[in-house]
Order: sequence, then structure tokens, then C-alpha cells
Amino acid sequence: MRTRPLKVALLGCGVVGSEVARIMTTHADDLAARIGAPVELAGVAVRRPDRVREGIDPALVTTDATALVKRGDIDVVVEVIGGIEPARTLITTAFEHGASVVSANKALLAQDGAALHAAAGQHGKDLYYEAAVAGAIPLIRPLRESLAGDKVNRVLGIVNGTTNFILDKMDSTGAGYQEALDEATALGYAEADPTADVEGFDAAAKAAILAGIAFHTRVRLDDVYREGMTEVTAADFRSAKEMGCTIKLLAICERSADGASVTARVHPAMIPLTHPLASVRGAYNAVFVESDAAGQLMFYGPGAGGSPTASAVLGDLVAVCRNRLNGTTGPGESAYADLTVSPMGDVVTRYHISLDVADKPGVLAQVATVFAEHGVSIDTVRQQGKDGEASLVVVTHRASDASLSGTVEALRKLDTVRGVASIMRVEGE
Amino acid sequence: MRTRPLKVALLGCGVVGSEVARIMTTHADDLAARIGAPVELAGVAVRRPDRVREGIDPALVTTDATALVKRGDIDVVVEVIGGIEPARTLITTAFEHGASVVSANKALLAQDGAALHAAAGQHGKDLYYEAAVAGAIPLIRPLRESLAGDKVNRVLGIVNGTTNFILDKMDSTGAGYQEALDEATALGYAEADPTADVEGFDAAAKAAILAGIAFHTRVRLDDVYREGMTEVTAADFRSAKEMGCTIKLLAICERSADGASVTARVHPAMIPLTHPLASVRGAYNAVFVESDAAGQLMFYGPGAGGSPTASAVLGDLVAVCRNRLNGTTGPGESAYADLTVSPMGDVVTRYHISLDVADKPGVLAQVATVFAEHGVSIDTVRQQGKDGEASLVVVTHRASDASLSGTVEALRKLDTVRGVASIMRVEGE
Repeated sequence: MRTRPLKVALLGCGVVGSEVARIMTTHADDLAARIGAPVELAGVAVRRPDRVREGIDPALVTTDATALVKRGDIDVVVEVIGGIEPARTLITTAFEHGASVVSANKALLAQDGAALHAAAGQHGKDLYYEAAVAGAIPLIRPLRESLAGDKVNRVLGIVNGTTNFILDKMDSTGAGYQEALDEATALGYAEADPTADVEGFDAAAKAAILAGIAFHTRVRLDDVYREGMTEVTAADFRSAKEMGCTIKLLAICERSADGASVTARVHPAMIPLTHPLASVRGAYNAVFVESDAAGQLMFYGPGAGGSPTASAVLGDLVAVCRNRLNGTTGPGESAYADLTVSPMGDVVTRYHISLDVADKPGVLAQVATVFAEHGVSIDTVRQQGKDGEASLVVVTHRASDASLSGTVEALRKLDTVRGVASIMRVEGE
Repeated sequence: MRTRPLKVALLGCGVVGSEVARIMTTHADDLAARIGAPVELAGVAVRRPDRVREGIDPALVTTDATALVKRGDIDVVVEVIGGIEPARTLITTAFEHGASVVSANKALLAQDGAALHAAAGQHGKDLYYEAAVAGAIPLIRPLRESLAGDKVNRVLGIVNGTTNFILDKMDSTGAGYQEALDEATALGYAEADPTADVEGFDAAAKAAILAGIAFHTRVRLDDVYREGMTEVTAADFRSAKEMGCTIKLLAICERSADGASVTARVHPAMIPLTHPLASVRGAYNAVFVESDAAGQLMFYGPGAGGSPTASAVLGDLVAVCRNRLNGTTGPGESAYADLTVSPMGDVVTRYHISLDVADKPGVLAQVATVFAEHGVSIDTVRQQGKDGEASLVVVTHRASDASLSGTVEALRKLDTVRGVASIMRVEGE
């Protein structure tokens, strides 16, 4: 074994960073044996240097992250600050000064992955980010290495633990969204400002990363259709149950039937209770992958948290250190397929639509005509009514999102349709 | 991209080999783009050269596998023959003649993994074998790379599709073992001679491989305790249901509480219906991994079949080809931890024991005394009796296998115990 240690600069020492530092210390011998050389924490960049950080030598702590990555003797920079800046500049500076990078930064990777990969490639350095998607669950590496000889057609997953906790709570207790969110906040599963989670921004970033890797093409954050789950109601869960379904916030990346284009989207959807994703409870994450040869695979585990995320970071750290000792780099960005990313209107799926209608003869015929005119075929329809008020629940066969939007627009114009109570996609069938 | 192709020799062209060849042809452009150079099928060694093999140039087919691996211009040998010889000699010959190896051979890896890794290392070549365990499910790579910075404590999995199909059938229909086996055979899920599957030899080989990689130590096939599932009865399933459990053939690799030793075993066991492994249906495989930092992860997918296994082989092929282009090798064997492999007697778990006893007063007291004398604490006991015959069902708290064996031996000597109807371990709680 080489005795000269590999030097690691840690940027950020919050929930994840402190756990990375702790494991680097307590498992130093194991890491050295697995890498083939010891790893040494050479510096820790933080915002609040006065905070006591158990187990970290205060002499290593600095507020000058830029100086740390510019030192020139750093082998690997571990970036667990999050957000776009200063993380982006620090990472590119790290490459320029000879370091490889391990990052857990989904927002940055989703927005600027291509540029960061290019910078890594230009300087012959590694950029690894297993921790950016689904915490500890090995997903990036299986997609870009294990399935490198296969053709992935679909990635369907629960990639946000906060929203899964809320939806699971609504499902199991009948609670409304706000009540379930309050409980998630009280238990620490949701942040004070839950927007990034509940509006699907976090999941959309992960969808962009997953789609890019799965399909060997570039998918930008803007390419991902995004719908949050704040409008999901207890009534939606009752409707889902009637269909033998539950509701999950899903990230869905699909290749079109002709293989020439892909789509990526995040939205709440009904999935059958028999689907393995339906039984993913609490804050857990799970991702289904469908490919030509392997068939259906599922990866399941904790999607967030200090320790699980640190596990993913350290797995990458070991790989990057090994590459460095071997004078090589791992697989970089693979975007050769250069596929079109189609808009949401091209997505084909099934829909569950609840309409408030007038309770009089002929309404169903009117509604059915609108569906037919837009080429949306109806699978089942259920009427319920009393006191002049009625509801119609329509479940469609597979149709394009554009056709469905057109249908809904036309439905709203009908005198007999008082409102569209909810529209939800049905997936996983 | 490099234009000179990497040359691949395929040993074996059965269900898996023919699928590997097919995908290499149909997905040649994708493989080239992902590797950075084209890959060319340079030769296919088969036993029956006269068989028509669609899509394979007859000029590539040879019966002389040895000459093929000795050619000297082969970059990667893909071994999908199976069995110990001639596979072992062909693989070592391949290393000696400059090739890296991708293998799907669980029996060989479990028996001679250390020697093969040593041969690969000596010649500076790669030995990859993702397909040897759980077919298409990425498991070897996640364990040896993604979790390389973590400490794995337990691997618990369904790694044999044939036996899972049979047990699932028994569970869902109430069928006996023979009836379920017959159906599995008729549907092609069981081979004409099902011994390797139903007696747990196949799962034991996979357990040895998994334990070695998970714990960074050497676990030989002989170290794995093995018990088949041919004795599992419809009555056992009824008992399991009463406990809220089902029965699965599990491969279990565990680190001892003090971390100094490990165990590996394969046997049927009751697991709670709430455990994610309980809902693994048909011929699917799934493996649970528990580690210090990541927590609980699960990997699920098709565990066998030509296409899924080919997917795993091709993922390895891409990795090995990339390594070759970079003039490097991937992580080799990691057995530095050099842990003791403890015998089955040291395993600590819970037990479900059905006894046929005389239906007279004092029997329960006698039986309970025997458990107490051997230090096995009883959790629950249930008595059922009529016409002088009775049964006692005892579920224990956690106890060592040695203590339980001693208990059972002593129970058999009691006059009032007419027989031990079944002993089954209870896992996953």
C-alpha cells in the first residue's frame, strides 16, 4: 500500500459533511485498505468557523473555501454545500487546480451538469455524484456502469422522501395535505420552507440527472415537466382507493416508442397497489428501471439523511481515489445519443378525471362526445349524483397529454360541467 | 473514438451466450459509443458446432476453446459455459495470454474465486462477474464500489428464482412441494434435475460470493451452511401464516456483533409478510443489504434468464473494455479484513418448532424445562390436541443454533415427544 495519503478537502460541514468527516476518521483503516492508500482530511471549509465540530481538528477548519480548493495539493474535493453558487465556481476551480470532485449537489448537477462534466474532462479529472440522487441508493453507478450494455427504456421512481412521507401519511390516515405536511415538519421530514420538495423542484432535478444518464443524452432541468403535490386531496386518495391505487409523487423518464426522443416529468400519479412502488413507505425512496435485456429492476433505500448520503459520498470517494492512484478516470458524461427531449404534450399515459356536473339527462353523452372528439378513449366512467349535483369520474385509455389537455379545455366550456375537480395521471400499469 | 476494435472471445453459446452475441451485434453502435472503441466478436467456442446460430458468422464458431483463448489478440474473454472445468483452465489461460475475463460462473467463483482473482492480479487483468449473482440485478458492483465507503453488516436475499417460484406457488395455492415443483418444471422454471436449486447449492455459491465481497474477506463455498427446501410442507406454510409470515429460501450473510467474524448460510426461513422480501413473487430475486451508514437497501429484479444475465455480462464487458482502453483495471478482490467464518452453531436467530407430543398433563412443563436447560427462551407456545395426540408449536426468542440443536436433541429423547415435525428459522424481524 502507498503510505503517502490522498488529501481530501471537504466543502461544507453540515448534516452530510460532518458525517463524511466522522466516517473518514472512524473507518480510516478500512478506507485505506479499500483504496490502497490512506486518505487524509486536509481541510474543511465552513461558513461558521466558531461552531464546535466534534472529531474535527479545528486547525483544519477554514472559511476560505476558494483558497482551500486552490491549494494545489488536494486530490479530491468533496462538495456538500448544495445550491448553485459558490458550489459551481468552487468545483470548476478544483478541477483547474488538479483535484477530482465528489458532489451531492443535485440542483447544480441538473442545471450545469454538462458544463461541469466538460470541465472535469478538460482537466482529466473525475466528477462523481451518486449522492445527488436518492441518497444512499446506488443508482447512478448501476445506470451508468451496470446497465452500460443494455438499453434503458424507462425510469420510474419515488425520489423525494419528504413528499413520500406526506403522501403515505395522507394515504394511511385519511389526513389532508396541510395536516400531513405539518406532521412531516414537526418530525423533521420537511423543511421550514418545503417548496423545493412539495412543488417537485427537488424531484425534477433528480429526474433530469437520471434521464441524462439512463438515455445517454443531455436533459436539462428546463426539459423536465414539473407539477407539485400540494393540490392532492383526501378525496383524491379515496378515488385512488376505489381504483385499487395509491398516489405517489413520481419522477418518470421515458424513451418514446420509436426510440428517437425522451421525456422527463415529475407529478403526482395514481399507481396500482400491486406495483412495488406503491408499498414504499415513509421517507424511503425507490426507483424502478426498465430495460430491454434486464427487464424490470428496482432499487430501494433511504433517500436522504446525513448517514445515508455520506455512504454514497464515501463510495464515490473510494472510487475517485482508486482512479487517481491508477492514473485514470471513471466514465465521464455519456451524451452521445443526443436525443430530442419531447414536451409534456407528447407524453402518453392514462388519466383519472373527476368532474362536477349538472345532474340531468344527457350530461354523460355530452361529456363522452368531447372525449371522442379529442381522440381520448374512455376506459371506465362512474356517475354519482344527488340534489341536482353530480360527479362523473372518467378513467381513460392511454392518450397524449396534449389530447387530454384539449379535452379538459373543451369540457370546461360545457354548460353542464360545473368544474373539473381533479385530473390525475395513472402510471405503473 | 478509437477505430481499432476490441476483440471479444465468447466461450459458450447457449441461452446466455447467444443473447450476449445478439446484443453485441444489434447494439454495436451504442456499445462502441459507451466504450470509446468498437467491440468485435472474434470467436465463439461451442460444443456443438453444427447447430445453427442465428446472427453469428459460422466462420467465428470453433470447438477449440483453448486455441481461441490462446490466440493472443483477444482483449476480453466472456465465459458463459458454467461449471468448474474446462471453465477454470480456460479463464486462467485467458489471463496468461493477455485477456481480461467476464464470467457468469457462480459455481466456479464460489469455489475458486481467490485463485482466479490472484491469477487476474498477477497478469494485471480484470475479472468481472456481476452475472454470477442474481442475474441482471446490479449487486456485485454496488457492494464492491457504491458501498466501498460503508460497513456492510448483513446481506439477506432471495437469490434463486426456481425455489422462489416453487415457494411462492405453495404459498399462494396451498400446494405441496412436489406439486409446485412439477409446475415449475413444466413451465421451464426448474431443470429436469432440480437438485442444484432445491437443495440450495446454487444459492450457497451466491452466498459465498456475496459474503466475500460484502465483508472484504474470503468466504469459501464450504464455509456456507446449506439446507435445501425440499422438506418444506403445506403445513409449514399454514404455520407461517398463523405467525403473519411466509416462507422463503434465504441466503443470509452476517457480521457478528463484535465485528470479528462472519457467517453465511442458506436455508428456508419464515419472514414476516411486512418484510419487503416477503412480496417477492415468482422467479424474481431480491437482496436486502444493511450497512452502518446507508441503512437498509434493497435490490430487486429478474435473477436468471438469457436476456437479464446477458445484460449483466454486457455491463461488465463495457467496464472491462473501458479499463483496457485506459490501461487500467477495476477493483480486484478485497479480502484484507481476513475475518473468521464462524460455523452455523454460532448463528443467533429465532426458531419455530412443531412437536408431536402425547396429549397428557405435564408435557408442556417437560418441554419448557428442556428449552430452559439449554438456555433457549420461549416467546410463544401453542398447544393443540385431541384423541391422545397433540401438537406443540414453540416460537423462541433469539438463540444460537448450537443451543437450539441441543434443545431439539434433548426433546427427541423425551418419552412424551413422539416426533419433531418441523424446525424453521424466523428471519427478517
